Amino acid sequence: MKLSFPLVAIGLEVSMIVLFGFFVKYETEQNVQQQYSTNATKVDKFLELHPLFQDVHVMILVGFGFLMTFLKKYGFSSVGINLLIAALGLQWGTFIQGILHNKGQTIYIGIKNIINADFSTATVLISFGAVLGKISPVQMLIMTILEIAVFAGNEYVVGEIFQASDIGASMTIHAFGAYFGLAVAGVLYQSGLRRQNEKEESVYHSDLFAMIGTLFLWIFWPSFNSAIAETTEQQYLAIVNTYFSLVACVLTAYAFSSLVGKRGKLDMVHIQNATLAGGVAVGTCADMKIHPYGAMIIGSIAGTVSVLGFKFLTPCLTDKLRIHDTCGVHNLHGLPGVIGGLASIVAIVLGASKASTRTTMLMQAAALGSSLGTAIVGGLITGLILRFIVCVQPSTEFFFDDSAYWEVPKRED
Amino acid sequence: MKLSFPLVAIGLEVSMIVLFGFFVKYETEQNVQQQYSTNATKVDKFLELHPLFQDVHVMILVGFGFLMTFLKKYGFSSVGINLLIAALGLQWGTFIQGILHNKGQTIYIGIKNIINADFSTATVLISFGAVLGKISPVQMLIMTILEIAVFAGNEYVVGEIFQASDIGASMTIHAFGAYFGLAVAGVLYQSGLRRQNEKEESVYHSDLFAMIGTLFLWIFWPSFNSAIAETTEQQYLAIVNTYFSLVACVLTAYAFSSLVGKRGKLDMVHIQNATLAGGVAVGTCADMKIHPYGAMIIGSIAGTVSVLGFKFLTPCLTDKLRIHDTCGVHNLHGLPGVIGGLASIVAIVLGASKASTRTTMLMQAAALGSSLGTAIVGGLITGLILRFIVCVQPSTEFFFDDSAYWEVPKRED
Amino acid sequence: MKLSFPLVAIGLEVSMIVLFGFFVKYETEQNVQQQYSTNATKVDKFLELHPLFQDVHVMILVGFGFLMTFLKKYGFSSVGINLLIAALGLQWGTFIQGILHNKGQTIYIGIKNIINADFSTATVLISFGAVLGKISPVQMLIMTILEIAVFAGNEYVVGEIFQASDIGASMTIHAFGAYFGLAVAGVLYQSGLRRQNEKEESVYHSDLFAMIGTLFLWIFWPSFNSAIAETTEQQYLAIVNTYFSLVACVLTAYAFSSLVGKRGKLDMVHIQNATLAGGVAVGTCADMKIHPYGAMIIGSIAGTVSVLGFKFLTPCLTDKLRIHDTCGVHNLHGLPGVIGGLASIVAIVLGASKASTRTTMLMQAAALGSSLGTAIVGGLITGLILRFIVCVQPSTEFFFDDSAYWEVPKRED
Repeated sequence: MKLSFPLVAIGLEVSMIVLFGFFVKYETEQNVQQQYSTNATKVDKFLELHPLFQDVHVMILVGFGFLMTFLKKYGFSSVGINLLIAALGLQWGTFIQGILHNKGQTIYIGIKNIINADFSTATVLISFGAVLGKISPVQMLIMTILEIAVFAGNEYVVGEIFQASDIGASMTIHAFGAYFGLAVAGVLYQSGLRRQNEKEESVYHSDLFAMIGTLFLWIFWPSFNSAIAETTEQQYLAIVNTYFSLVACVLTAYAFSSLVGKRGKLDMVHIQNATLAGGVAVGTCADMKIHPYGAMIIGSIAGTVSVLGFKFLTPCLTDKLRIHDTCGVHNLHGLPGVIGGLASIVAIVLGASKASTRTTMLMQAAALGSSLGTAIVGGLITGLILRFIVCVQPSTEFFFDDSAYWEVPKRED
Repeated sequence: MKLSFPLVAIGLEVSMIVLFGFFVKYETEQNVQQQYSTNATKVDKFLELHPLFQDVHVMILVGFGFLMTFLKKYGFSSVGINLLIAALGLQWGTFIQGILHNKGQTIYIGIKNIINADFSTATVLISFGAVLGKISPVQMLIMTILEIAVFAGNEYVVGEIFQASDIGASMTIHAFGAYFGLAVAGVLYQSGLRRQNEKEESVYHSDLFAMIGTLFLWIFWPSFNSAIAETTEQQYLAIVNTYFSLVACVLTAYAFSSLVGKRGKLDMVHIQNATLAGGVAVGTCADMKIHPYGAMIIGSIAGTVSVLGFKFLTPCLTDKLRIHDTCGVHNLHGLPGVIGGLASIVAIVLGASKASTRTTMLMQAAALGSSLGTAIVGGLITGLILRFIVCVQPSTEFFFDDSAYWEVPKRED
Repeated sequence: MKLSFPLVAIGLEVSMIVLFGFFVKYETEQNVQQQYSTNATKVDKFLELHPLFQDVHVMILVGFGFLMTFLKKYGFSSVGINLLIAALGLQWGTFIQGILHNKGQTIYIGIKNIINADFSTATVLISFGAVLGKISPVQMLIMTILEIAVFAGNEYVVGEIFQASDIGASMTIHAFGAYFGLAVAGVLYQSGLRRQNEKEESVYHSDLFAMIGTLFLWIFWPSFNSAIAETTEQQYLAIVNTYFSLVACVLTAYAFSSLVGKRGKLDMVHIQNATLAGGVAVGTCADMKIHPYGAMIIGSIAGTVSVLGFKFLTPCLTDKLRIHDTCGVHNLHGLPGVIGGLASIVAIVLGASKASTRTTMLMQAAALGSSLGTAIVGGLITGLILRFIVCVQPSTEFFFDDSAYWEVPKRED
């Protein structure tokens, strides 16, 4: 048991090195006949988009990592296992997405490859939020491998076959990651989770650590939604629309947090999460001409729905459906991701879709259905594999407790 | 009472959506006859300056937000209400500045619009520092609306009528924000503030959280001072001068903190704040040829004055003038902002002003006078409105205490 | 005694202002006959590389600063003295490197100057990690002056005379900084350090603060290793190789941390530090065509060696060699730096060195030898100066304790 984690980790790293040895090269090694793809222009493009990539990278490591440190005894695992998942996911995502898009041929590492690897990692980190505190590091490594494979498959179907539009990946990352994670959480459910667990709470400073995550996610979300835009005009639209969706979302998230709170008090869980829902919900149509006020309407709705989800839906999921969602990813990624898909359909109906896209209402609906369906089926199967094959799960008394996997120092002096 | 906050927040967001629906469009929708403003060049300019904007954005959300978390029981409000103010201010600032500069016509969203919105928000956040812990969220929302309107008016007068030079906005943002906030704090003064309040202190970790804010402000301050430069040479000068002012400022801030401390000990309040004074003081003349050593002299003076202000002036303000300045914004933004205005006059006398500027000593003096005068009068009127009309102020026993507005978890386990 | 710190700090700042007054100008003031160095192109180059510089700047201030906050009672000094050292080092490094490279003539401030100043500062901050908690602020100011002078000398020899390749400065910054710091730590050794000191431990939240440093270092390390690349292709290679070395390093660091831990438990010290060793070890050959899998092999080895160093070598160094290494810089910078030098020799043997470099195995070996030799001799002499001349050292009972130099608030409420 003590050996399973290091052996799996080393085995996976050795496998990655072998796969990369056979399949991965620098993009400057690629011989392309096209006039516009000399090494100089390829490298220029790489360096031009590199700052955008770094914004996304900060979101993945600092944003997701610290957002989950709100639990009082699970901060080491939140930020630490987040880094571990990211390091594995970035390698595996680079490989599996490259292989799919290049039909099994050599992968040449360009800026899009590493941005897309960050995206595939984001998907797993969203699912990690649903099972946080209830899963072992070994299980998370295996889940990373399985989920990214399914994610890449669905993303291929949505993008290449349906030719659907999903620039900020509301459907393929956010909704997918949330429902995949919820499906896994459902399979791994333990009846002890229904009782109030005092470890599943925050303390004052852990909530402040989580705000570090929230703020870096909030600041760089426009970069996330615009990083893979095809034209600079679409990039401009994606930045501006995401920005305005986010600012509007903050106002409604605060308003509804106070409305549903005892004596009008704000709840840190809502502020940490629901203020970001606008970034998710505007993702699919971020590069369409939805007007700044349209983006603000989407953001306002997302902030509202997200807070109401935390208040009324999450307790219900645990009690009725036996799905325990530690970070409430359903409210930050699931529901707003679905809103994102629906918003894109409305935007197309209203004629806001960009001229260059040939996507249709039907294709957007198919993309949403495919993302949800693949996520749920993939998550159920993954959950079964984790429960019955990779069954090194912590016992309930070690849920939400770093000391299961870490040497933990004293809390305070 | 419980309803006032959510209703005001929702009302303001609905108003913003309506205003944006009527007045705000993408800059790619603007038909311009000029040869050099095709959509492609406009979008290129946007993306070129976007990294600079993001630096400023980090300062606004993470920098200001965490700098104020030093209070041991007021971290949620510091970083949380900071985000709320920013989200409202970014919308309202975009609108009101756009309307003023375009004489009431359609606003086309370019990079300068969102940088300037960040600037108008910074002004309110500086004032927030003066009233931190003594004002309710509803009052802060109203103050955001009022202050940005006054700010935009003064900035218009300084820039368009006086044609004064203030690239880093030492006068129009820092001095203005500080004196506006102090005026509001003076009107809202309660006699209980004179007594030592044990809640108005830091604990060990809250001081470390505040250093996150300090460092991100320090690192990105050169971007703040150079973001709206007209030429790339001015941008270069503003970056280099701000950088050297800041490094020099750190040395004198540490030296004087130790000099005025008991047994030579350093005070975290000085380190968190006075090390940034060099960024403020060099702001107005940052794009002038003041030489690197000139920038270092300005920074050295600012660091010294700021520490002495914390030590000797702030207690005096509370006791004698009944103005209680929670974060000491007078020492970080007020005095260094005035130094910035004066430094620009000296720089012009010494012939350092850039060739392209037609500003004169007199115009700089007028700009400084206008900024201080407008701030104090605007702040007094705003304070009266907050005290007697939007009178949902916390009672003194809830000063500096998150539990007035937040569900607060346990401090430690 | 109380006066020594402020007087030294003010004296140094006045000296810097005088030196800058005589030697430092804007690069736009430089008259160059060359066609390609008009002011416009110089300024464009500055602004183009400015985002990379800022990444490095975040590493220096936030990365190094917070990485060292893991000690429970020494966070103020870690992040605070880090800022102080940086502010002095940035000025002195700009001057001394400029003078060396320009043979005593006027220094014109371009982007390379401020990137190199960050690099010289990084060297001191690495050494600071070795003596953390055992040295006074005055001693650190003097050490900053001495170490940067020696560093600049060695860097000049390595780059200009040996013409060796060391783009990510594994040898000239990391190995140099580590062995210089260890030499100083050896000279300043006190027998009390052999006993277990309960102040030399972390608490739960101090370990989370340290992870802020780790993550920002990890994210921006590719920028560090590529910032001074001569061609854009080398910049591309340095970014990609560093990225893949880092992701691989994380997997082996986690695996070996668990392998050597009690009952398979992870150790936060390893995670905070060894996950970064891949960035150090790939530094020297980062711009060579070592293939992504080659970078991953280097990273895997570095992560492994670093963890084993923490576990087995660091206790040995203290007990046998009387060298006490507070942060374990030998494991994060020393050993991986040496691996970096050796890897570059292997890479050259295997023909991976870039076409444009004329460096040879011999020159790389000479560079490694020079860096280690200069560091150890320079560190010993500096240690002797600090011990017997600048002898304001804290007494052992104040080791690892902020209260020696800071007004410290209560730990918790």
